[in-house]
Amino acid sequence: MQPKLTLVGAGPGDPELISLKGLKALKQADVVLYDALVHPDLLKNCKKGTVQKYVGKRAGRHSYNQEEINDLIIHYAFTKGHVVRLKGGDPFIFARGKEELEYAETFNIKTGVVPGISSVNLPGYYGIPLTKRGVNESFWVITATTSDGTLSEDVKKAVYTSATVVLLMGLRKLSQITALFKAARKQDLPVAVIAQGSLPQGQLILGTVGDIEQKVRRAKPQAPALLVFGETVGTHPEFYQKVERLQKQYLPYE
Amino acid sequence: MQPKLTLVGAGPGDPELISLKGLKALKQADVVLYDALVHPDLLKNCKKGTVQKYVGKRAGRHSYNQEEINDLIIHYAFTKGHVVRLKGGDPFIFARGKEELEYAETFNIKTGVVPGISSVNLPGYYGIPLTKRGVNESFWVITATTSDGTLSEDVKKAVYTSATVVLLMGLRKLSQITALFKAARKQDLPVAVIAQGSLPQGQLILGTVGDIEQKVRRAKPQAPALLVFGETVGTHPEFYQKVERLQKQYLPYE
Repeated sequence: MQPKLTLVGAGPGDPELISLKGLKALKQADVVLYDALVHPDLLKNCKKGTVQKYVGKRAGRHSYNQEEINDLIIHYAFTKGHVVRLKGGDPFIFARGKEELEYAETFNIKTGVVPGISSVNLPGYYGIPLTKRGVNESFWVITATTSDGTLSEDVKKAVYTSATVVLLMGLRKLSQITALFKAARKQDLPVAVIAQGSLPQGQLILGTVGDIEQKVRRAKPQAPALLVFGETVGTHPEFYQKVERLQKQYLPYE
Repeated sequence: MQPKLTLVGAGPGDPELISLKGLKALKQADVVLYDALVHPDLLKNCKKGTVQKYVGKRAGRHSYNQEEINDLIIHYAFTKGHVVRLKGGDPFIFARGKEELEYAETFNIKTGVVPGISSVNLPGYYGIPLTKRGVNESFWVITATTSDGTLSEDVKKAVYTSATVVLLMGLRKLSQITALFKAARKQDLPVAVIAQGSLPQGQLILGTVGDIEQKVRRAKPQAPALLVFGETVGTHPEFYQKVERLQKQYLPYE
């Protein structure tokens, strides 16, 4: 038995958005430690007898803290063999994958990584490009809420650029964030709020810096949500219609 | 026969990094229009009789220009049925997917999108996180070369932030880019150059703003390459070793 850890990105919710390589890892796993936002259907791919343990957090409440997760990885790697750490999105984009890898490596556990489609790709899934030729040249992805709970300083700089600004963990700070864009005289900048990833209950709310707060109050989206500020949001075909809950783009094969 | 266009993200090179949903689309396609950097093994999944056409560009040379690609999509959708536009990475991240969708929609062709693992996720594949708690709170993704061939203005702003800066199409402008970081007194900032995606010939070069140019001159990586500037690059386990051509992280199942 060789102790082994593979970090696998499960993708942004839809169970068919995992990669072939990620699925292979899952099928071979002796233990799966999985997060919130991992679709339950994915676990059906595990072989018989695989230990499946939920270690996620929701709205700040952890089932296990990071130190406990690290210790679970080590424990299971040495007692069961191949541990797959199944994470929503991509394991290296705001997911603390690096911390888990480094900890396992101090125990000489073989480690591997299978990237995943990040929630950062979700706007595309909803028909909103992060970049469009002639509109912008970049996008800036920021965790709105820093480890001490305050708003990231990076947001304050981002409002003064022409980058599409993608904010994670920003739903509760929406008022503070729109105030910054307003101070930069960007009242009319298009905004999208994408809640619940590509899960069936996924939700898209379109608006502007000026009216998005009101629309969010009415639509009551559930966290986690992605906030997207930028001119590329305005290229959504329904942006100029007065609708609040929109259909996703036709999802192939559903 | 229903004319249909599905944009599919093929992922960053490794043919097993396509999603299950992307593979399904490919299996059902009547026509596949594919880009450079799409692994040839992926096309083996097509059903018998599927038209397969290469429409990519390499180093500025197009086999077809964008208008011709748009017209091919329309032509094949109406004469053959389901057109899959297979793009490296993700169709909406610097890939002009939106332009193709909009054009098809003006012909009332049904459109769909399957996101893909972007080349922006590649640093993780090579053991370099884009974000790490306590190190940084954001990453900024910029196309270094704008549509008129000049360096993006966004790069000039990005060098003054603590974001991990990820640059696409920047290999030929490396000297100009490092000059900007030097002007911001960031001589010692860690830099990674990742060439040729996750294809077997993929290459990682590690250095600092001060010495990366010299290392690249010696290693001669082939475009396309991703440039990553940021403190998170310094967390790579081999960053402080004097090696120039590094092994990727153990790649599961190879």
